[in-house]
Amino acid sequence: MRKKSKNDNDIVGNIAETMSRIGYHSFVTQLNPRKGYHFMDTSHRKVTKVLKLTDAQGNPLKNAKVGIRQTNHSFLFGCGAFDFIPYVMQGDEEHRQIAESWLDIFNYGTLPFYWGQYEPVEGKTNRDAIMKTAEFLKSKGVKVKGHPLCWHTACADWLMQYDNETIMKKQLERIDREVTGFKGVIDMWDVINEVVIMPIFDKYDNAITRICKEKGRVGLIKEVFERAHADNPDAVLLLNDFNTSINYEILIDGCLNAGVPISAIGIQSHQHQGYWGLEKLEEVLERFSHFGLPIHFTENTLISGDIMPKHIVDLNDWQVDEWPSTPEGEERQAREIEEMYRTLFAHPLVEAITTWDYRDGAWLKAPSGYIRLDNSKKPSYHMLRALVRDEWWTDISAVTDENGFVTVEAFKGDYSIECGDLFAETKLVEDGELAIVLNEITRA
Amino acid sequence: MRKKSKNDNDIVGNIAETMSRIGYHSFVTQLNPRKGYHFMDTSHRKVTKVLKLTDAQGNPLKNAKVGIRQTNHSFLFGCGAFDFIPYVMQGDEEHRQIAESWLDIFNYGTLPFYWGQYEPVEGKTNRDAIMKTAEFLKSKGVKVKGHPLCWHTACADWLMQYDNETIMKKQLERIDREVTGFKGVIDMWDVINEVVIMPIFDKYDNAITRICKEKGRVGLIKEVFERAHADNPDAVLLLNDFNTSINYEILIDGCLNAGVPISAIGIQSHQHQGYWGLEKLEEVLERFSHFGLPIHFTENTLISGDIMPKHIVDLNDWQVDEWPSTPEGEERQAREIEEMYRTLFAHPLVEAITTWDYRDGAWLKAPSGYIRLDNSKKPSYHMLRALVRDEWWTDISAVTDENGFVTVEAFKGDYSIECGDLFAETKLVEDGELAIVLNEITRA
Repeated sequence: MRKKSKNDNDIVGNIAETMSRIGYHSFVTQLNPRKGYHFMDTSHRKVTKVLKLTDAQGNPLKNAKVGIRQTNHSFLFGCGAFDFIPYVMQGDEEHRQIAESWLDIFNYGTLPFYWGQYEPVEGKTNRDAIMKTAEFLKSKGVKVKGHPLCWHTACADWLMQYDNETIMKKQLERIDREVTGFKGVIDMWDVINEVVIMPIFDKYDNAITRICKEKGRVGLIKEVFERAHADNPDAVLLLNDFNTSINYEILIDGCLNAGVPISAIGIQSHQHQGYWGLEKLEEVLERFSHFGLPIHFTENTLISGDIMPKHIVDLNDWQVDEWPSTPEGEERQAREIEEMYRTLFAHPLVEAITTWDYRDGAWLKAPSGYIRLDNSKKPSYHMLRALVRDEWWTDISAVTDENGFVTVEAFKGDYSIECGDLFAETKLVEDGELAIVLNEITRA
Repeated sequence: MRKKSKNDNDIVGNIAETMSRIGYHSFVTQLNPRKGYHFMDTSHRKVTKVLKLTDAQGNPLKNAKVGIRQTNHSFLFGCGAFDFIPYVMQGDEEHRQIAESWLDIFNYGTLPFYWGQYEPVEGKTNRDAIMKTAEFLKSKGVKVKGHPLCWHTACADWLMQYDNETIMKKQLERIDREVTGFKGVIDMWDVINEVVIMPIFDKYDNAITRICKEKGRVGLIKEVFERAHADNPDAVLLLNDFNTSINYEILIDGCLNAGVPISAIGIQSHQHQGYWGLEKLEEVLERFSHFGLPIHFTENTLISGDIMPKHIVDLNDWQVDEWPSTPEGEERQAREIEEMYRTLFAHPLVEAITTWDYRDGAWLKAPSGYIRLDNSKKPSYHMLRALVRDEWWTDISAVTDENGFVTVEAFKGDYSIECGDLFAETKLVEDGELAIVLNEITRA
């Protein structure tokens, strides 16, 4: 009945087939079940749905061949979407290529709201370019997250002329402006970034460290979250940090007990200094699962070149002229990304994974992308596309019974249901029965 | 006018005089002002008070010579008071000696409420001995703190037979029983101990780690504090930890934002592996001052023998047959204790310092006491007594003016005012004017 077999015992074939031409060998067969949840188990990402199909007149579509084709994932496969800004604003060929291949994998993008860049002079914002880009992404079925509303790094220098009370007032007004102004286009925000280090950050003076010192970590988090929540009660609001130690656990614990409306826990995983490995990844997942909140991997980086030396504490201190991608590095990167994505996709609380850089040479000039500097696709690109759009993607043909019923097992997401010239769009996100009316609609 | 000069420029003489006979040289003259507060400044520990003295008939005591004698400190100079239990219960000579010299310095004692020892069999408690001892200490002007109401170590094994819900119920009932039952005798509690490590403590299974894992750190803290506060709203309730890292800062921050009624921050400072030194001490004071809450040094240890090796992580893992006190070690211990106490007494937020062991050979057999195993006094004893009962103690003679007024500068605390056969008791805790009636009372 299925066009492609998708069950868990036969998932290796597809990716191996896709990858064989680039000499990439999936490691999947080497792995065993792991503690807590089954590493390979993706059943919680699927629904079993009984569809009752009728035409516009209510007649059951009996014994009919239907196509059930996924058009989007419920899971958020994300990536930095900064490159869409020049594409949308200038439309050049270089960025058109980037946008096209990006959209062939991802359904979720991060756009920059660094205060110092978004509003370099008080009152003069970059709103137009960001809004146009966000609207473009939305039109392509991409969910957009704004990053971040409050952070000590990349902050606006002009804030430092004010006293702390005024800085706080302007911070909250800034949240009002962005969260209210982008509502409906951007409904997901990294509200505050890297708070564990925020009040003790001492590389340079900045307005946000000043107010965090005064109000304390939880006090500041509470104020900015409450304001963002009031501005858009339906928004998904994230606390985001690179610190995955017990510090961050206790911070989240305190915030939740203080009633801070955190929708999801954001975990950064920039691995310029080498892959965490399964053991650390699963340990982090276990520790941050205690809260029962959704977990988003917000900033993932795995590189395809030399590893940054371990002695570097702040990644920004590693400044190089060039940082080449190598064939061995690209093979390693693809394997590491595959292991991470499979592990995270299997974990019931993970709802989103965002890779930070789409193209090599962005942050720190690192070979951290899915595509090279010349826009050619790396093994990691092909691997991830095979996962997201093939192995974890539902595209099946089936035949209804004499009453127009058909039972499907499908990855959660958006679907088109096709039967001859009839067509419908639907969401399949939970088990159960669903009546669907198919119409004669010419698709765009 | 003063019997003894107590001003800050002349504090060295007294301690040097007291110590010279044991060859101890105070380091005080070597020190300079330090950041944030003046290391030597004890002015915030004093009041300037204008006393108006009259007799029982309301006649001013004109041009009269009066004695203003301190009988207790407002500052809490504390020590472990476990040795009072055998003294009060059995009254033997060995413990009588301990009690006598102890009471000559300290006005504040910690009594043990370790659940496993306090209630070794469910329902059979050690209440009688602890209550008698607490009442005895109270009768001697000693404030008593109970330690602790909730802790994963030294917990009752019998709790583990129950499910988590029942354990939590019994924990809260235990708090009711102790806090309500000892009200008026013990009004100060280490409510919960070492929570930073509590949910990840894995040396052995115990009931408290189980419930902390389930409820989270802040969740458990909130419940036990709220219960203790409801049981005795006037009680001083402490959170206590040996972890002085950013973890504990964030934990406190979260608790305060979650509305946990913490009266004071408890900081342990067991220094079996060597003295922290001024730099760490002042850094810890600075970081924990941000909350504006009183700070109690709850468990201070400095030893007068060999230092425990640095590689030991849990102090309890260092088990030795004997751990001798040495002459050089005793000299070093006295200097380190002096530096610590001076630093802490000078800090405006510190309200209490408790030395953990009064006599050598208690916890871990360490030479951690003020007296040796044979009850003889160590240099640290003489040094601290000179600080507490001489340098930081007010005992002056003065003469009233023609209206019966006399102005005194005095360390905050309890006082007896004497004029010939007339006598009064009073508290001097804040600046201002105070009318005092002296009566002909024969003192006990």
